[in-house]
Amino acid sequence: MKKYQGYLIDLDGTMYRGSEKIEAAGRFVQRLVKHNISYLFVTNNSTRTPEQVAEKLRSFDIPATKEQVFTTSMATANYIEEIDKSATVYYIGEEGLQTALEEKGFRFAGENADVVVVGLDREITYEKLAVACLAIRNGAKFISTNGDFALPTERGFMPGNGALTALISTSTQVQPIFIGKPETIIIEQALKVIGSDKTETLMVGDNYDTDIAAGIRTGLDTLIVHTGVTSKEKLKEFREQPTYSIDSLDEWKF
Amino acid sequence: MKKYQGYLIDLDGTMYRGSEKIEAAGRFVQRLVKHNISYLFVTNNSTRTPEQVAEKLRSFDIPATKEQVFTTSMATANYIEEIDKSATVYYIGEEGLQTALEEKGFRFAGENADVVVVGLDREITYEKLAVACLAIRNGAKFISTNGDFALPTERGFMPGNGALTALISTSTQVQPIFIGKPETIIIEQALKVIGSDKTETLMVGDNYDTDIAAGIRTGLDTLIVHTGVTSKEKLKEFREQPTYSIDSLDEWKF
Repeated sequence: MKKYQGYLIDLDGTMYRGSEKIEAAGRFVQRLVKHNISYLFVTNNSTRTPEQVAEKLRSFDIPATKEQVFTTSMATANYIEEIDKSATVYYIGEEGLQTALEEKGFRFAGENADVVVVGLDREITYEKLAVACLAIRNGAKFISTNGDFALPTERGFMPGNGALTALISTSTQVQPIFIGKPETIIIEQALKVIGSDKTETLMVGDNYDTDIAAGIRTGLDTLIVHTGVTSKEKLKEFREQPTYSIDSLDEWKF
Repeated sequence: MKKYQGYLIDLDGTMYRGSEKIEAAGRFVQRLVKHNISYLFVTNNSTRTPEQVAEKLRSFDIPATKEQVFTTSMATANYIEEIDKSATVYYIGEEGLQTALEEKGFRFAGENADVVVVGLDREITYEKLAVACLAIRNGAKFISTNGDFALPTERGFMPGNGALTALISTSTQVQPIFIGKPETIIIEQALKVIGSDKTETLMVGDNYDTDIAAGIRTGLDTLIVHTGVTSKEKLKEFREQPTYSIDSLDEWKF
């Protein structure tokens, strides 16, 4: 196996399952630390701040600082900064998105914003949706943090940000730019943060349709671990296979 | 011109424009009354009760009782009654939908409802959407009062019920049954209420994509009046033409 300089690592299904610990995950990251290899946790969860994510990881004995967490909200803020540093932004979202946008110093606006960003917002209202639709009809660029259409919870599958985004794209007839996995933007932005070349970076995840697809599309080698969404059987159905597949992160050799 | 026994008449763009009176509309309906011809106002607006709609019409000097108003909420309630009289219902919607369902005596339920009905709800919350998604994933039949994706208002185009519905269909990956125009269900149900045969009934409206399309699909003769959405020029683009087209309802001869 190739020695990679950087690891981009998915969270749910890879580092833990909801509130359940995956024992091999902590050992895997501890070995990364021991070998002095850079790693960055890359998540489609737009609602949490990197501090909150790192804290959850540490609660599972996974070594993680906030600097090692890269959320789709951060990728979104970095992307907007690249295309228009002085853009005014209207967002729908929770603390993770708000914080990421504030940290980049964007000014916020309403119906006349230059950019509309939509992330999961469990305090959604008709007024918030109306302002987003009016701004997009006024010409604002429409960005969605991620297209996940359902969120697994203890109650069942709840509406995800892809569903919220579909409301706005259906009403305005404008399609958004999606940032999160399986899109390449979040991976391109993560590579800039981790600082390793794409040929030297491995994308690690449990979900073919998001983690592995994003890695393949961006030109990274990929490692699927069957501890979450995509089973060994299901994986066989895909034409483009990940570079590596394992049942447990304990199997991985550095 | 053929003598029709019944008229199904659209509201916005045909009887008035938003809060603006269309003078010929009152005269048209007064002539219907004079000729003793049955008429029923058929609207995709799910939020108002028939009493509220009739009151608005009377404020424009258009003769209208609540019995002469048929909303998509009423069509939805009638449709559910036909397919399963004892169904438990979870709905998202406003007073018009609530009243229509209550009048049919449906019992309401949550995640275990037999039927989920989605109508425009400007007090929408994440919890309401979540319950709808959970119920549909539990096997509830998914019905949407109408697919209008944008609502014209003085502020601009606001999200319509088609957009709200898209959130739920995207999250659940289940497509709803739509009741309102341009679907045939609302027209079939309206025919039952007005009691005239489809060959003896005329559909009158300003919008080709909803009113006229619904009439044609249901096998009715159709009359387009160019006082609202579809212009004379635009109408030429459609392959299937309405039976009649006029610039003002004053031109119509009974």
